[in-house]
Amino acid sequence: MIELTSEEKLLAQKFNKLKQEAGSHSPSIFTFKQKLPELDIKVDACFLSNPYATDLFLSYFKREVMDTGKIRELLEFYPSQNNVIAELLGEFLKVKPERIFVGNGAIEVIQAVLHNFTRSKILINIPTFSSYYEFVKDGVEIIYNTLKKENDYRLDVNDLIEKVKTEKPDTVVIINPNNPDGGYIPIGNLRSLLAELASVETVILDESFIHFAYEDSSFDPINTQALTDTYPNLVIIKSMSKDFGIAGVRAGYGVMSEARVAALVKNGYLWNSNGLSEFFFRLYVREDFAKDYELVRKRYIADTIEFIDALSKIEGIKVLPSKANFVLVEILEGTTSMEFVIALLVKYGIYVRTANDKIGLVGEYIRVASRTKEENELMVNAFKQLTQ
Amino acid sequence: MIELTSEEKLLAQKFNKLKQEAGSHSPSIFTFKQKLPELDIKVDACFLSNPYATDLFLSYFKREVMDTGKIRELLEFYPSQNNVIAELLGEFLKVKPERIFVGNGAIEVIQAVLHNFTRSKILINIPTFSSYYEFVKDGVEIIYNTLKKENDYRLDVNDLIEKVKTEKPDTVVIINPNNPDGGYIPIGNLRSLLAELASVETVILDESFIHFAYEDSSFDPINTQALTDTYPNLVIIKSMSKDFGIAGVRAGYGVMSEARVAALVKNGYLWNSNGLSEFFFRLYVREDFAKDYELVRKRYIADTIEFIDALSKIEGIKVLPSKANFVLVEILEGTTSMEFVIALLVKYGIYVRTANDKIGLVGEYIRVASRTKEENELMVNAFKQLTQ
Repeated sequence: MIELTSEEKLLAQKFNKLKQEAGSHSPSIFTFKQKLPELDIKVDACFLSNPYATDLFLSYFKREVMDTGKIRELLEFYPSQNNVIAELLGEFLKVKPERIFVGNGAIEVIQAVLHNFTRSKILINIPTFSSYYEFVKDGVEIIYNTLKKENDYRLDVNDLIEKVKTEKPDTVVIINPNNPDGGYIPIGNLRSLLAELASVETVILDESFIHFAYEDSSFDPINTQALTDTYPNLVIIKSMSKDFGIAGVRAGYGVMSEARVAALVKNGYLWNSNGLSEFFFRLYVREDFAKDYELVRKRYIADTIEFIDALSKIEGIKVLPSKANFVLVEILEGTTSMEFVIALLVKYGIYVRTANDKIGLVGEYIRVASRTKEENELMVNAFKQLTQ
Repeated sequence: MIELTSEEKLLAQKFNKLKQEAGSHSPSIFTFKQKLPELDIKVDACFLSNPYATDLFLSYFKREVMDTGKIRELLEFYPSQNNVIAELLGEFLKVKPERIFVGNGAIEVIQAVLHNFTRSKILINIPTFSSYYEFVKDGVEIIYNTLKKENDYRLDVNDLIEKVKTEKPDTVVIINPNNPDGGYIPIGNLRSLLAELASVETVILDESFIHFAYEDSSFDPINTQALTDTYPNLVIIKSMSKDFGIAGVRAGYGVMSEARVAALVKNGYLWNSNGLSEFFFRLYVREDFAKDYELVRKRYIADTIEFIDALSKIEGIKVLPSKANFVLVEILEGTTSMEFVIALLVKYGIYVRTANDKIGLVGEYIRVASRTKEENELMVNAFKQLTQ
């Protein structure tokens, strides 16, 4: 049992209120600063983001934008249109630019794809990222494929294929690695799965966390973009917020058929970049930045593996295997997930995400992001103390 | 007749190619820099933006974000959700937050409103901002109310009402001041018009340029937000790019019925702000900034009036009355609008927008933005030389 002081209890009440107001997503750090200034957050481990990549981006941004006066044009002028950014990305990703849809964050791509291409029935594995069921339009039927607790919520490819055969959805959503559990489908299995799903109208493959996944100890990048050549029904969605540590920039893209991109930009989505995201995309495709980025990506993966290993050794919690930059942790000893979250927050200033709103989870779970090596160590110690 | 040197002709060809690729909107200054670096643009008078407001925003941004290290959190963290920004705006604008929809630029609000609320028939005054007819979904019938050349393209309120009665559109679009001609509907007339349109399902009032309009020599702000109390069918759309000189930030909002905002945010639009726009909105509602802004707004209006007056005295062109920060200019003496644009560009480095793609205009027109006092003087001199 975790005991709170009366002061901690008061903070806990205020936190609960804010959390309720934010709906199914965690309140942002800005919202906290505005509404709960007495809360001193030391580690934001709700926040799924590579902090080393933020450092890297910031160093380029400072050198090339802030120190040069270029910041003015970035704020003042209209960003380039969607097709200009798509052209840059296409060359870098070796994908035809006409197959790239640039979004104001991956969330806009998710919204656009669901609103425009999902017709009447969508199949979603749960637990999942809630926007996939929250953003579907009225009238669309949602079918859930419930991942099994006894299987650590890993996707059983055969179960999914079976469900597709019986339910005949027009859209299937696959997140790889999955959110909130980090379950990873190896590229070989993914290929077989996509072959089986070839007759489904739209297969969404959300790879927002793919930069944190690895197939072997080289941690080399996993590249699936070419799969959209083989499978015209495939829509790959990519957030840049997490891997590049730039959630405030709002950058994401989708790779899909030319016809789909054309359909989307026909009636809108012209200026959905902003000055920051245009700068980011222009940087992202540069060789010097790409080389620097590879270093911080691999460093972060190494730290994350170390973090997950350390958490796994703590008794009283169960840590699920993950190839994302976060881990789903089950609280075993009679403490609710919310009690655990609040204790971490008010006692240690560590903000983790309760997963008690995630449909499909059976038990008390929290989702913990990997942060810097130092922050991860703080977290491991706090977890040890709380579970003693 | 305007004569070009062979060097100027080559530049002209390259410019034409870029222009064609950009479709119905001018290529951005970033696109030019990337693709046509030999072009030295001294004045970008395509660009509808208050440069003094950019200076002001930049001074706050530098002091509060760049010099303090706050830039990191702005880039790194997720911006607040739509409802948090709406709450700030609501207090400032004296509108219920539930009636405010925050957009990634006004263009997103336009797109969202057209895609979600226009059912089958839309009435648009032409000439107009092209997105209003380009963004409507397939299957929606577009009816044009053609503004009359002999009336300087001013909106005849009775004509519009007549057209609404006969055509029975579910959506009517009014831009005040209108783009591309700057025609202004005084607030008294607007009230009468809205009363007549009370039975139309959706009336869009785009006030992207309203901060540049004035009813008397005090240049006091024109405030229409309260009209959404009286007319639940009214959707006011407001860009912040032009008046605040921050197009790269992507900030805009709409004021509409609670039910409409709820319908929009129900299936998406959660994180459509970015770090920059959240900073901007938080600044916009501050008293100190608002006071400073009023000064640069009025200064720019005064400069714009002076600019339009000076242009009006030049022979060979006809300058239409405008209460926006731009003016529509008819080229009278046998030169096409495109020839005039190219001559200004290659001889003087002045980039103005041809209006030859604007449906509803009869004749050769260019649209010229008011810039700084010095830039405006450069333009007046160039116009004088070209029309000699």
